[in-house]
Amino acid sequence: MSEAEHAHVHRLESDQEAAALGGLSPDEFKFAFRHHAAGAALITADAGDGPVAMTVTSVFSVSAEPPLFVFSISDQSSATATITKAETLIVHLLSADQLDLARLGATSGIDRFADTSIWDRLITGEPYFPAVRTWIRGRVIDRMRAGSSTVVAVHALQARLPETTAAETAPPLVYYSRTWHELTERSEIGRQ
Amino acid sequence: MSEAEHAHVHRLESDQEAAALGGLSPDEFKFAFRHHAAGAALITADAGDGPVAMTVTSVFSVSAEPPLFVFSISDQSSATATITKAETLIVHLLSADQLDLARLGATSGIDRFADTSIWDRLITGEPYFPAVRTWIRGRVIDRMRAGSSTVVAVHALQARLPETTAAETAPPLVYYSRTWHELTERSEIGRQ
Repeated sequence: MSEAEHAHVHRLESDQEAAALGGLSPDEFKFAFRHHAAGAALITADAGDGPVAMTVTSVFSVSAEPPLFVFSISDQSSATATITKAETLIVHLLSADQLDLARLGATSGIDRFADTSIWDRLITGEPYFPAVRTWIRGRVIDRMRAGSSTVVAVHALQARLPETTAAETAPPLVYYSRTWHELTERSEIGRQ
Repeated sequence: MSEAEHAHVHRLESDQEAAALGGLSPDEFKFAFRHHAAGAALITADAGDGPVAMTVTSVFSVSAEPPLFVFSISDQSSATATITKAETLIVHLLSADQLDLARLGATSGIDRFADTSIWDRLITGEPYFPAVRTWIRGRVIDRMRAGSSTVVAVHALQARLPETTAAETAPPLVYYSRTWHELTERSEIGRQ
């Protein structure tokens, strides 16, 4: 899409105009999406004033070349201020055996870095959790405001990738309707 | 981290070097995200030149008030041209018993609307699949380019919501590493 088309979209439908159209109530909207499952990821960053960690279920890849992914953060999350100004961050793609880390990053009012035996820093400074088999370090390249959240686009610079065999045997962690699930042969219903 | 684990980390001298090299290779990036699960959705639209349908695993909600969600489309998808210019569209959040629809929207080189018994049009014109319990009609409010894809932000205007009881018993459909999964009590490993 050209820049001209992008501008055209903005002119047609600003957030204010869209809001004026009404639409689904917050409760209706949450109800619809409560039944939409998503893989769990733990995002960490440090913009100079201490490490933050946040569990999200909104990470997806958008482009392999260049390698780009996005996720969203609500203005209400305690980690948002840091992630909004961080230039680089880490996204940990969680396996079912990392449910404890997913809960750590989803629990309010605690020091998520209190246990210093489970996290470390990369040489580039970002806090990370070495137990996670797959993580990606990336640089924030774009942000899009959407209501009371921000969609963050990240360029993947560096990663720890799992062993092929380990990856095959580490079921991913999925969140759905306030429950955590693992995907295994028992949950499989078909191949694409 | 052990030496063996170090070997799997994609290491670079600097972010500048990483950027110059493009960061992770497409294969490394795809490998990392192959093990990230996602709920399946079927997106339909008609910008005036015929209906299109596309299965995506990149839908997530970003804001309940106003009710906004995003998804991404690759430039390479056959439905992209239509979805790029459509002002409104439908996102169907799929259950495990709609695996056939997920496959329909993920299969290239077929007429996804050949079976006229399974789709209809809303009074507002958008094509949709009435068998799906949860769908949302939305207006595109913003687009963000990211590599060879576009992240589309949508304001939810109208929805079909499932009956509470039916929703509880319809397991969501999840895609992961070229396999389809359903989330049920068997896959549950904990509550948040």
